[in-house]
Amino acid sequence: MSALLSALAGDAEIEALLADAAQIAAMVSVELALASASAEAGLISAEAADAIAAAAAGFEPDMDGLAEGMERDGVVVPALVGQLRTRVAEPYREALHRGATSQDIIDTALMVQTGPILDIIAARLAALIDALAGLKAAHGGKTLMAHTRMQAALPTDWGAKLDSWLEPLQRYFRTIEQMRPSLLVVQLGGPVGDRASFDGKGDAIAALLAQRLGLGVARPWHTVRDPLVALTGTLALLTGTLGKIGADIALLSQTEVQALTLAEGGGSSSMAHKSNPVAAEILVALARQNAGLAGTMQQAMVHEYERSGAAWALEWLTLPAMFVATGASLRLALRICGQIRIA
Amino acid sequence: MSALLSALAGDAEIEALLADAAQIAAMVSVELALASASAEAGLISAEAADAIAAAAAGFEPDMDGLAEGMERDGVVVPALVGQLRTRVAEPYREALHRGATSQDIIDTALMVQTGPILDIIAARLAALIDALAGLKAAHGGKTLMAHTRMQAALPTDWGAKLDSWLEPLQRYFRTIEQMRPSLLVVQLGGPVGDRASFDGKGDAIAALLAQRLGLGVARPWHTVRDPLVALTGTLALLTGTLGKIGADIALLSQTEVQALTLAEGGGSSSMAHKSNPVAAEILVALARQNAGLAGTMQQAMVHEYERSGAAWALEWLTLPAMFVATGASLRLALRICGQIRIA
Amino acid sequence: MSALLSALAGDAEIEALLADAAQIAAMVSVELALASASAEAGLISAEAADAIAAAAAGFEPDMDGLAEGMERDGVVVPALVGQLRTRVAEPYREALHRGATSQDIIDTALMVQTGPILDIIAARLAALIDALAGLKAAHGGKTLMAHTRMQAALPTDWGAKLDSWLEPLQRYFRTIEQMRPSLLVVQLGGPVGDRASFDGKGDAIAALLAQRLGLGVARPWHTVRDPLVALTGTLALLTGTLGKIGADIALLSQTEVQALTLAEGGGSSSMAHKSNPVAAEILVALARQNAGLAGTMQQAMVHEYERSGAAWALEWLTLPAMFVATGASLRLALRICGQIRIA
Amino acid sequence: MSALLSALAGDAEIEALLADAAQIAAMVSVELALASASAEAGLISAEAADAIAAAAAGFEPDMDGLAEGMERDGVVVPALVGQLRTRVAEPYREALHRGATSQDIIDTALMVQTGPILDIIAARLAALIDALAGLKAAHGGKTLMAHTRMQAALPTDWGAKLDSWLEPLQRYFRTIEQMRPSLLVVQLGGPVGDRASFDGKGDAIAALLAQRLGLGVARPWHTVRDPLVALTGTLALLTGTLGKIGADIALLSQTEVQALTLAEGGGSSSMAHKSNPVAAEILVALARQNAGLAGTMQQAMVHEYERSGAAWALEWLTLPAMFVATGASLRLALRICGQIRIA
Repeated sequence: MSALLSALAGDAEIEALLADAAQIAAMVSVELALASASAEAGLISAEAADAIAAAAAGFEPDMDGLAEGMERDGVVVPALVGQLRTRVAEPYREALHRGATSQDIIDTALMVQTGPILDIIAARLAALIDALAGLKAAHGGKTLMAHTRMQAALPTDWGAKLDSWLEPLQRYFRTIEQMRPSLLVVQLGGPVGDRASFDGKGDAIAALLAQRLGLGVARPWHTVRDPLVALTGTLALLTGTLGKIGADIALLSQTEVQALTLAEGGGSSSMAHKSNPVAAEILVALARQNAGLAGTMQQAMVHEYERSGAAWALEWLTLPAMFVATGASLRLALRICGQIRIA
Repeated sequence: MSALLSALAGDAEIEALLADAAQIAAMVSVELALASASAEAGLISAEAADAIAAAAAGFEPDMDGLAEGMERDGVVVPALVGQLRTRVAEPYREALHRGATSQDIIDTALMVQTGPILDIIAARLAALIDALAGLKAAHGGKTLMAHTRMQAALPTDWGAKLDSWLEPLQRYFRTIEQMRPSLLVVQLGGPVGDRASFDGKGDAIAALLAQRLGLGVARPWHTVRDPLVALTGTLALLTGTLGKIGADIALLSQTEVQALTLAEGGGSSSMAHKSNPVAAEILVALARQNAGLAGTMQQAMVHEYERSGAAWALEWLTLPAMFVATGASLRLALRICGQIRIA
Repeated sequence: MSALLSALAGDAEIEALLADAAQIAAMVSVELALASASAEAGLISAEAADAIAAAAAGFEPDMDGLAEGMERDGVVVPALVGQLRTRVAEPYREALHRGATSQDIIDTALMVQTGPILDIIAARLAALIDALAGLKAAHGGKTLMAHTRMQAALPTDWGAKLDSWLEPLQRYFRTIEQMRPSLLVVQLGGPVGDRASFDGKGDAIAALLAQRLGLGVARPWHTVRDPLVALTGTLALLTGTLGKIGADIALLSQTEVQALTLAEGGGSSSMAHKSNPVAAEILVALARQNAGLAGTMQQAMVHEYERSGAAWALEWLTLPAMFVATGASLRLALRICGQIRIA
Repeated sequence: MSALLSALAGDAEIEALLADAAQIAAMVSVELALASASAEAGLISAEAADAIAAAAAGFEPDMDGLAEGMERDGVVVPALVGQLRTRVAEPYREALHRGATSQDIIDTALMVQTGPILDIIAARLAALIDALAGLKAAHGGKTLMAHTRMQAALPTDWGAKLDSWLEPLQRYFRTIEQMRPSLLVVQLGGPVGDRASFDGKGDAIAALLAQRLGLGVARPWHTVRDPLVALTGTLALLTGTLGKIGADIALLSQTEVQALTLAEGGGSSSMAHKSNPVAAEILVALARQNAGLAGTMQQAMVHEYERSGAAWALEWLTLPAMFVATGASLRLALRICGQIRIA
């Protein structure tokens, strides 16, 4: 996403956590943790793990070389391992990445990155829930004309409206917390996903790797993507609810309705009198974007054989945008909550 | 879905549970239970509830009249209530549907219908898990050439393959069971979703209604659709995994691969020698259909105001197809499991 | 689609053209035309063609048998050809379907069915364009408050509004007419799509077949689906524009805005004072449904090899719903145009 | 898209044409051309146009200021016009952007950017058609085992296969050329899309603006997005066909099939013997990504009123990714064509 569009509908904080530098750093940390775990489990020697740790210290990747490798191999890991290996003292080079496959590193790194992203999402969601609860405390008893099927219906109160916004958000907060243990897990399968390449030590190494990275343990999930896709479904639900809130705000702040006003709307280049509910509209746009992307993530469930380059790459092309859209949506919802004025 | 297409890619059992007759019967049962609950809660008299029960006994809806009402009102309930009321002895006519809005009846009836559909899905899923576990018991130790990125990689065994099919299915079974309490709940909100129309007895009536219908209790959820959309996300995950299994079966049974054979494939009108992995291909098609529909359900999260005829109708246009696709996918997966032959 | 939902958001006329009976009749007509064309081209004898014509006369398919065949073979044609062949006098049985593959019959039959569906769509579109032009003639000069970003902006006139509704509809009318020649073409490829099974007479037979069926000629398109998918893209654009019109009507007829009123809205089961813009809302729902289905049709572009049972079946699961949604959308738009009252 | 992912599945050339700098430059060029056209049409004075041209010469936007404006106003134009205006000598400041609305500038700038992007797409498409024609000339007569429904069927030849790849590509080339005149048009509507703000000179200014920018003329299309959405439909068809080609290549180059080999496949971090059809798989991934995004663009057809910030922003969140995916897909298809070896 361009920087200008990102200022409106993006999320600088989450974008930084997904940037190349962050991803490569996460991958290096996974390789390091794998070496350490493999040493403890006896797959490689302690000296090898030390040599690998020494090689990683101060490692500055050659990004052009990584890009070339990415283009050639379809994954960045062979090039990254190649660059790291040149820094490992022999005879320990082969100990780096021993038994692992690119997908082990990439998926585990993704989980390393996802934890902090979920932290941000959860924190903003909690703040939003607080803000809405504050609005309810302040205005919950005030009368509001309810509308059904786009027509004024009967009076209700703001408490009912705010409850309908709050309840699903509280549910998503719990859902995301509940997902963490089964979602944020190491990937360790080796070339064909059966851990056979770890000389019988695969389960032990997976457990030790998980420990080092603060992740959970799981069977290899090279082709088993439902926890990740389920997460994106929840993200889309979240942006969907925020889109509903945005739609309500845009409707309630219509010139002819004015059930609420926004302290600061967007300016127009041609109509100085206007104050546009920009953030509310972007909430709707992000909801629809994420809804579509959630459908695409579901398409990525159909993996061929033991690893599908096609289905997996489809995740890469989709998931980051969903994280950013979710972060942006929460950011905007928080801002707009502070702008709502109810007479 | 036409009967011919349904024979291939539909599900007669689930289609019957979603048919007009079943839906109207469910709605009538909801109106009856509402009258009974309202009487117990003191909103209407016991005599009124009896009169309503008498009216419902032997009620045969005039389906043409219901269709006219549906077209005119956008919901069938006004016409249905109208037909029922003509059978209710006065002065009890107004007690029927007292306090309720169409959406209360329609959504609650949907939950009444959804329970048995989930029963079917869960039963088939359990049977499929058993069948796959049986295949694992019989063949798990046999060698299988693993393929990654569409190329032969290294040998693994059938146990690893079958585990990757089984694990997510076991997870969905648990997820669906866990969803039931928060999903299968009554809808009772009244015209604008705040239960104000029930004279302070709304919460009590909701609880009694839930009891009578074997559903759970919840706040009104006229515009809060995430539990329903989350269910469809899980259905799409399920068909996604079955699509992955279908893709694997189609690949593994290729003429040139023959890692498995299918006892009965489909015949060709022009090539008598062929045995096509028809069911496997349909699993892929259903996965992609459901993935797309799951995205559309996410679009339906954006409700305007207290009731969006647009977002709600979008659910009606989407959810039944997802139930049928899921049922069909399980039906086909079960069949194909019985056809797999591993040398 | 259930009959009740169809009354609201379906299209009985188009549904009938897509029903099993219509599809089987179209397939039989294709087999007949193929026999006749094959006789003229010299692939089969004139006596064989006569015997086939005699067999088809009065043919009543055994629908249960066809459903069994559909389930077994993934296509209905082997069973249908089997039923027909039992009625063909020997030695002419093998002349029926000679050289053809199931897909030739199914795709060509779809084109036979699609022509009349496009006729309906075009006729309704023309009527809608007329109705909107009539509204413009009557009200074009009247002032209308324009709204941008959900806020009152500056006055414009109804002519500008109606032009923005009309222009894209006129474009779709032209597009659909322009698509016909390249879309409504015969499919004739034989088992693997290269016409080799027609003994060098494939091109001639295709031309003669096209002539008999009132279709155009094209290279075999077993895996080349872009004209069909492009059609569905145009259908989605059409329902998208009608969704925009529906959104405008729902907004303009809001209680607080009343820039237009609707002569007959839908009734409410709980609020007698309401008149809901039901048809306008359904236009939005159908737009969103078709948008999602258009994305699914695009997913069906990825055919494996010379025939993908998965991608092809995905079309079957998607295309009929798009035709019905488009027909329904036009039907509702026409109705609502007659209900618009502008002060 | 991150630089690493872009190396695999992005398009540096098209990304540059979509970058902030390119977009701002296009907007400035539109403001300049508008001033010039407005002067010729007599809406502003020649001196004003000269002052504006002088202001634009050497203009270096304050990107942080633009980002702030974007976030506040939902569009960058008010901030951009503000920055430019400080450079315009008085009394000519108000002549800049006179009569126009932000959407006029943004949409017209998008068309200015789209032309060169379509040039790239068309050039690559032409090169790909040439490359495939070359493969046909070299190998068209060679025998190829055809596969239907994932099973070996009957022999065909490479000519038939390559024709099925070529024909739709040739069609897209023509479609894109045919779309240009009606797609690449100026947007000029003023605040509410009726050109009323141009004092009766709107049509003349639009024509002069078009002339200066090398674009076509059209009625204001603030809410009429079908030409743009139709373009994205064609882009998805194109990537869909390239996805089909990718699927075929991945299948034909399977270890067990070897109907073709790829001169250079991707390397594996764990299996040195493998040569992965990486580019073929990415073609499938891009096809599925674009298919999903095409559905989202269809969702953006539903504009509310005279300008929908929600629907319009949804385009911004979707269209650039589709351009990049299409460019990347063509880039990869061209590369893989050069790698195909047929025995």
